[in-house]
Amino acid sequence: MNMTAEEKMERSTDSASLARALERSNEIDRAIDEDPTHFRVLTGDRPTGHLHLGHYFGTIRNRVLLQQRGVETWQLIADYQVITDRDGVGPLKERVFSLLTDYIAAGLDPEKAVIFNHSAVPALNQLMLPFLSLVTESELHRNPTVKSELEATDGRAMSGLMLTYPVHQAADILFCRANVVPVGQDQLPHLEQARLIANRFDKRYGRVHKDQPVFKRPEALLSEAMLVLGLDGQKMSKSRGNTIELRMSADETAARIKKAKTDADRVITFDPENRPEVSNLLTLASLANGEAPEAIAARIGDGGGGVLKATVTEAINDMLAPIRAKRAELENNQDYLVEILRRGNERANEVAEETLRDVREAMQMIYY
Amino acid sequence: MNMTAEEKMERSTDSASLARALERSNEIDRAIDEDPTHFRVLTGDRPTGHLHLGHYFGTIRNRVLLQQRGVETWQLIADYQVITDRDGVGPLKERVFSLLTDYIAAGLDPEKAVIFNHSAVPALNQLMLPFLSLVTESELHRNPTVKSELEATDGRAMSGLMLTYPVHQAADILFCRANVVPVGQDQLPHLEQARLIANRFDKRYGRVHKDQPVFKRPEALLSEAMLVLGLDGQKMSKSRGNTIELRMSADETAARIKKAKTDADRVITFDPENRPEVSNLLTLASLANGEAPEAIAARIGDGGGGVLKATVTEAINDMLAPIRAKRAELENNQDYLVEILRRGNERANEVAEETLRDVREAMQMIYY
Repeated sequence: MNMTAEEKMERSTDSASLARALERSNEIDRAIDEDPTHFRVLTGDRPTGHLHLGHYFGTIRNRVLLQQRGVETWQLIADYQVITDRDGVGPLKERVFSLLTDYIAAGLDPEKAVIFNHSAVPALNQLMLPFLSLVTESELHRNPTVKSELEATDGRAMSGLMLTYPVHQAADILFCRANVVPVGQDQLPHLEQARLIANRFDKRYGRVHKDQPVFKRPEALLSEAMLVLGLDGQKMSKSRGNTIELRMSADETAARIKKAKTDADRVITFDPENRPEVSNLLTLASLANGEAPEAIAARIGDGGGGVLKATVTEAINDMLAPIRAKRAELENNQDYLVEILRRGNERANEVAEETLRDVREAMQMIYY
Repeated sequence: MNMTAEEKMERSTDSASLARALERSNEIDRAIDEDPTHFRVLTGDRPTGHLHLGHYFGTIRNRVLLQQRGVETWQLIADYQVITDRDGVGPLKERVFSLLTDYIAAGLDPEKAVIFNHSAVPALNQLMLPFLSLVTESELHRNPTVKSELEATDGRAMSGLMLTYPVHQAADILFCRANVVPVGQDQLPHLEQARLIANRFDKRYGRVHKDQPVFKRPEALLSEAMLVLGLDGQKMSKSRGNTIELRMSADETAARIKKAKTDADRVITFDPENRPEVSNLLTLASLANGEAPEAIAARIGDGGGGVLKATVTEAINDMLAPIRAKRAELENNQDYLVEILRRGNERANEVAEETLRDVREAMQMIYY
């Protein structure tokens, strides 16, 4: 089967590709158990708000686990991605430190993780230039994520940064020679784009060491489909006020959950199809305390929405208590946070400069 | 009149805009005479071959004059632009040094000019990121230069680097706060793009110092329409073998000119309309020795093509003799050339880092 690169990217989320990706992801997962030192993980977040339970259950907790399993993790605070689809940057500094604080409070060990931000690493950003030479305009256009992000911006004109952001993301992944990227299914096309760029670089510009391409092949570690809804049964989103942020107090959490949507049936059951809101609350409690949602429901019995909410509140507040305590401690230690970010950026620059040097050498762009 | 940015760019080469640009260019020219220290010029070349008489008469000689008039000149060896429309880089290192050698041999004073190359200045390249956020995809598309360059590539798929190269060129101009760019008319849209980006940056991201935008407004210094054809009367191009390269020997020059196209009329006259090849040879001689083409024709009289060619050969070889002597001397002093490029890149990095710092500060992207 001869697929063009564009087809390959568009089809990276079809069912056959997904099955292959899942199989490969399971292989990687087993290989991590065997020897975690073969792997470097790159993940990150846009600093556009505060982390909430959707982020925590969806990705942050997994990253902490990967680190605990012995994998080197790199955490990107993607500040340039803040401006792909909005005009201003907002209270950026506050958000960058909030994200950093959340990372550490949630369990990422800053002695082992490299936490850094885009705008502080020029050699990473320079990779945009050679990488842009390796993709065609129509590939950029047909990237499903760019398409869907564009749709989400409601007819706004596509900025050059939005159009090229899969290329920048490829630079994020490839500069630090990450070989594993934990992603959801919807992000597979980005990873396919990064692999295409790595392959094409190898073919077009060659190598520094004969037996080894300049870039490592990055592969997906697929997280289980983990859809947590907001407290109103809708998509979790800051603007809907239906989320619990990690930084909230126990009381704020209780107040938010008190307003959650339930239904009129006092007997609590786990039935996602027919009782989506109640079931979602049970899922949240289950994710927080590790009990099966059915078991939690049985324990509540005919206690109704009130007991359900109290149960969810307790589970979440218990889980978040140590995270919040750590958070409060970190908030009082801005110097320490600065030190972590500074060290992360230093390390990222070191590695980016090494990579850029190889890139320039392969491209015969070192003149003295 | 309310024009969109796209219209403004498309119309930057219409006759009314050209007239305004020419008027402004003349003002700048006079202002340079008054006080050259107010100006910084950015020019450059792609290192895709050796410089020939088309480059020399078209732009290099003007740059030398600007420098002699006391204007600070920055010379970019645009190595990343080599890959916008071709797959390989070719013998890049050789070409970079050939260009550098030509610059100095042609009269640019390396003690005063900053000569640098793209790939050695990461902070310049990082400007691509914020700048891409300030342009829309359709603007990129409608840039006339991108359009015509694409047409010249004969149906080849447009690379992301080609599409975004006006943005990269804006970074070249704006990073060093050049306020004058000597251009031909066809490059006015690029300059318009750079001005748009500078303006939008100011409006969207603001300033570091209240009374002064982060970027200077770059303006065009239009060179006189100076169309020199090749020795066969066709467009001068390396692949046609109809050019004289600065680095050629006097004998090679004579041999090339001997093969030039003339016509059967032994009486030499300057008549571009009816005798394009003969007139072009007279123009070349005139540009070389400063005599009017009509005067040269009168001097040759009925000497025919043979005397015409001998005259042209002498004029060009006389003009190039000191340049070639200097070139030969420089070629034997690779260390000196390396030192110039190293120093230029150091200076470019210094200025790029200062600019990037201002850019990050205006964007609130400095966190410690």
